[in-house]
Amino acid sequence: MSQRVVIIGAVALGPKAACRFKRLEPDSEVIMIDENEIISYGGCGIPYYVSGDVSEAKELQSTTFHMIRDEFFFREAKGVQVRTRTRALSIDPSAKQVLVLDLEKNHKDLLHYDKLVLSTGSRPWKPRLPGVNLPGVYAISGLEEAMQLKEQISMGSVGKAVIVGAGLIGLEMSEALTDLWGIETSVVEIAPQVLPGFVSPDMARMAQNILEANNVLLYTGEQVLEIQGSEKVQRVKTSQRVLEADMVILAAGVRPNSELAREAGLEISPHGAIVVDKQMRTSDKNIFAGGDCVQIENLVTGRPGYFPMGSMANRQGRVIGTNLAGGADEFPGAAGSFVVKIFDHALAGTGLSPETARKEGFHAFSAYVAQYDKSHFYPEKDLLYLELVVEHRTGRILGLQGLSTGGDSLKGRIDAVAAILPSKPATMDLSNLEVAYSPPFGSAMDALNNLGHVAENMLLGRNRGIGPGEFAGIWQERDKRDVVVMDCRGMDNAYPLVEKYPEKWQHVQSETLEANLDKVPRAGTLILVCNNGGRSYEAQLKLAKIGITSTLNLHGGMAMLKKWGLDI
Amino acid sequence: MSQRVVIIGAVALGPKAACRFKRLEPDSEVIMIDENEIISYGGCGIPYYVSGDVSEAKELQSTTFHMIRDEFFFREAKGVQVRTRTRALSIDPSAKQVLVLDLEKNHKDLLHYDKLVLSTGSRPWKPRLPGVNLPGVYAISGLEEAMQLKEQISMGSVGKAVIVGAGLIGLEMSEALTDLWGIETSVVEIAPQVLPGFVSPDMARMAQNILEANNVLLYTGEQVLEIQGSEKVQRVKTSQRVLEADMVILAAGVRPNSELAREAGLEISPHGAIVVDKQMRTSDKNIFAGGDCVQIENLVTGRPGYFPMGSMANRQGRVIGTNLAGGADEFPGAAGSFVVKIFDHALAGTGLSPETARKEGFHAFSAYVAQYDKSHFYPEKDLLYLELVVEHRTGRILGLQGLSTGGDSLKGRIDAVAAILPSKPATMDLSNLEVAYSPPFGSAMDALNNLGHVAENMLLGRNRGIGPGEFAGIWQERDKRDVVVMDCRGMDNAYPLVEKYPEKWQHVQSETLEANLDKVPRAGTLILVCNNGGRSYEAQLKLAKIGITSTLNLHGGMAMLKKWGLDI
Repeated sequence: MSQRVVIIGAVALGPKAACRFKRLEPDSEVIMIDENEIISYGGCGIPYYVSGDVSEAKELQSTTFHMIRDEFFFREAKGVQVRTRTRALSIDPSAKQVLVLDLEKNHKDLLHYDKLVLSTGSRPWKPRLPGVNLPGVYAISGLEEAMQLKEQISMGSVGKAVIVGAGLIGLEMSEALTDLWGIETSVVEIAPQVLPGFVSPDMARMAQNILEANNVLLYTGEQVLEIQGSEKVQRVKTSQRVLEADMVILAAGVRPNSELAREAGLEISPHGAIVVDKQMRTSDKNIFAGGDCVQIENLVTGRPGYFPMGSMANRQGRVIGTNLAGGADEFPGAAGSFVVKIFDHALAGTGLSPETARKEGFHAFSAYVAQYDKSHFYPEKDLLYLELVVEHRTGRILGLQGLSTGGDSLKGRIDAVAAILPSKPATMDLSNLEVAYSPPFGSAMDALNNLGHVAENMLLGRNRGIGPGEFAGIWQERDKRDVVVMDCRGMDNAYPLVEKYPEKWQHVQSETLEANLDKVPRAGTLILVCNNGGRSYEAQLKLAKIGITSTLNLHGGMAMLKKWGLDI
Repeated sequence: MSQRVVIIGAVALGPKAACRFKRLEPDSEVIMIDENEIISYGGCGIPYYVSGDVSEAKELQSTTFHMIRDEFFFREAKGVQVRTRTRALSIDPSAKQVLVLDLEKNHKDLLHYDKLVLSTGSRPWKPRLPGVNLPGVYAISGLEEAMQLKEQISMGSVGKAVIVGAGLIGLEMSEALTDLWGIETSVVEIAPQVLPGFVSPDMARMAQNILEANNVLLYTGEQVLEIQGSEKVQRVKTSQRVLEADMVILAAGVRPNSELAREAGLEISPHGAIVVDKQMRTSDKNIFAGGDCVQIENLVTGRPGYFPMGSMANRQGRVIGTNLAGGADEFPGAAGSFVVKIFDHALAGTGLSPETARKEGFHAFSAYVAQYDKSHFYPEKDLLYLELVVEHRTGRILGLQGLSTGGDSLKGRIDAVAAILPSKPATMDLSNLEVAYSPPFGSAMDALNNLGHVAENMLLGRNRGIGPGEFAGIWQERDKRDVVVMDCRGMDNAYPLVEKYPEKWQHVQSETLEANLDKVPRAGTLILVCNNGGRSYEAQLKLAKIGITSTLNLHGGMAMLKKWGLDI
């Protein structure tokens, strides 16, 4: 059976679906249209193109064997016809036709299809602000705009930049501008933290410290009110201040491009994404859709989710390619894994953050672990700072987020948990999770296993405590509160703090606690600290045994508190 | 309820079970005995202690906070009594007693227990060879022997060493001796490859190339017949040659220490390991066992397995600690994940190798992928060489092994697959596996996803081919066979080989194949090659479309063939 497939959108999902389909049904015809000139590029690589890590735009458009994925390539190598600079104006599902406009010739045309694929992607959300259309304001909707932006930078005319939004792309762009180009870069975020929805305030704070240490200026909890300038952008006015700017990048999230689908009468979600089934079929059985324009199932909540990620688009594209050829492949959904480079660190996660979990109706808590990715006796190693999100009562694992200078190590841990997240794992599944081990690559008891242990001990009420942010809040009010810190580490570590805060910081080492019960401070609340929360947990059990139960363990210990940035 | 727990063996599992139990039941008594002086060390760290990466033996015995885990530490910090230099002679399960011998005082004693834990570990298998007990022959049964070995090396008296066995420990020791100490090190292995049972001959060959490039001398398929010397070792006689040796290390596998259990009437497996249930209980409900002395379920085959790994012992130790205190935790079994450092590479795997799969009765095949761990346009990246083991017909994934200079990246991929291996994943589960992505940490279509694709296309008969080893075999006999290689890459890559082998190597680029059908070589067998097996797969489909089906795709492409070491 020979059929004609029309694909609207030639980045990520479209090309993947087209090529897969043509391999399976070489006699069928595929026409892929895109309103831009440049197609099939790695959009996630844009920040690295801007930074200079990727020197030329065409590298983002190249195959692994250095051929440019342009119209010619798709026609000759893949048997796929591509029409660039061609806009889809409307779809007539009953007639199976797409009305298209050739933007060069200003000529309209009707394309018949047997099957249609919507790969319309998303666009950056553009706030309705005064000055938002001034020259020098970029939304980076695609590679062409990124090339303009890089050109402006290369000309040396950008001394100061303002990025609106501290999501994944905002942070990647802040590094791109700062690291190589030395542009004074401010990031303005309306939420009180960076990466809202991705990580907890504690994890965000650790990321903020890294950004600030690398000269990124962060203004969280601030709203951009106006972009000012005559002829070109000159200033950004926020709810708190005025920032000078030669360039503004809008990175306040994306919106699915679903207008065509909506106008064609396809089912659209309340959030504006195209509704598809597991086979990536829309409400019209002849129309598939995937990538940034669709909603898919959140495999943790079981509810519809929106995951505008390049990797999703690629995997979904293959499923669509198969199903165009009569297959019945399914794309199950996503847990929402992500990883972002923040200078010499990586921040990564999967599933729900604690705040997202609560919004989704889960009664959730966090378990923290700060542990080396390698055996502690092995010379080369990086600390993993991990936060596990767990449902109270059931102990179900809802998510995991982390930060480390060992990016590949961190990502490996995230990916292992992401792999089991759809099957609703419990703490025991993490305690027993099998990870490959030898000292140059891990610990006999991996950080993931220990996270399972900590979470289980918290669930059972044995390990009662607080995270770094909560500790910082209490510490700042220590003079008003009946609270004392008991440092369970060795004398060398504890002594400087005992000396500095004689009233508030005392030392009883965990290992010799029983012989020193008389030295245990008596206070309304006793906060137990050690390096990572392990020895202080043992101290908590020992104190509970003799009836002292008003103790709180500092989860993640001094290691995580230091990363959090409390200056004690 | 206060009870008395006796633990036999104070390395890895014993201490973990002891400490966990004491945290849960602080009023109970724990007595842990060990016949050695040094206890609770990280045995997996021994090769790194020998190499000098870990400078002092006591680092292997230290906590993360630099306290030595000795008798004093366990008594004071953990409330666990330890008796070193104390050997368990026999167990009387009906009387719940262990007869022990104090090796210092030569004094026997009966220890009563409510619960007993067997953490007796394993010992290196010592072949019955003439000369096996000569001075200078080591089996590295523990840290004390390793200290003797390191002392002999440090004295500068070891110029040449022979290692018997090319398993994980044999290879780690070969690096330890060669890398820092510059000892001329030979490894003799009776199997025809290194790491038999862990990886395929193809993957082993890649590892062998790395070992040999780093001056390790490998003699596979050779049997050690005799260790020769007067007063101390001087030579090793194999089935093929005589090797001079100032030191011999026996690393030909380990055997479970199960004699005590057997004599006590506990159930022992046909292979000599103690039989336990999921709660790590032996056939006597008051006796637990775990670590290197027990068999656990192989989660891939569903049959009993033996996994003498330090990480297993630690995780099992916690389960036993919990269950000693009345819990009902379970240790489900293992897929058999491993990772080993081989100079600047890592080799890792999980589940079954192709040969093990066949031995276990599976009809299995391998899918290969050679792909960067990062986006191909990102400047810093490492190639992952992966082999996926898949069951014919069902498409069930049975195992994954790989090699890379990006060790953490590789381990992350192995761990993600290990996490789902017990749930019997199919190729589609790998094609859709969610891994965190951004260009500095992965590809939009990860190597794991691509492995799923390749395996699926092989299952469905679309991608028919051979691995590097099979190709090498055919290539060596090319003059006798009606076989021609069609190079599907660009001219630059293909030309030197076309020129060198005009009869046997021809060039038709995949992307322009349809326009050059007249140039397609006609041969009994046409082997299609490209860089990684992707473009040649496309060529295979295009040729099949016009009726040319006697083609074989080189899986893993020239990249994997190069790593395999065929000199073309």
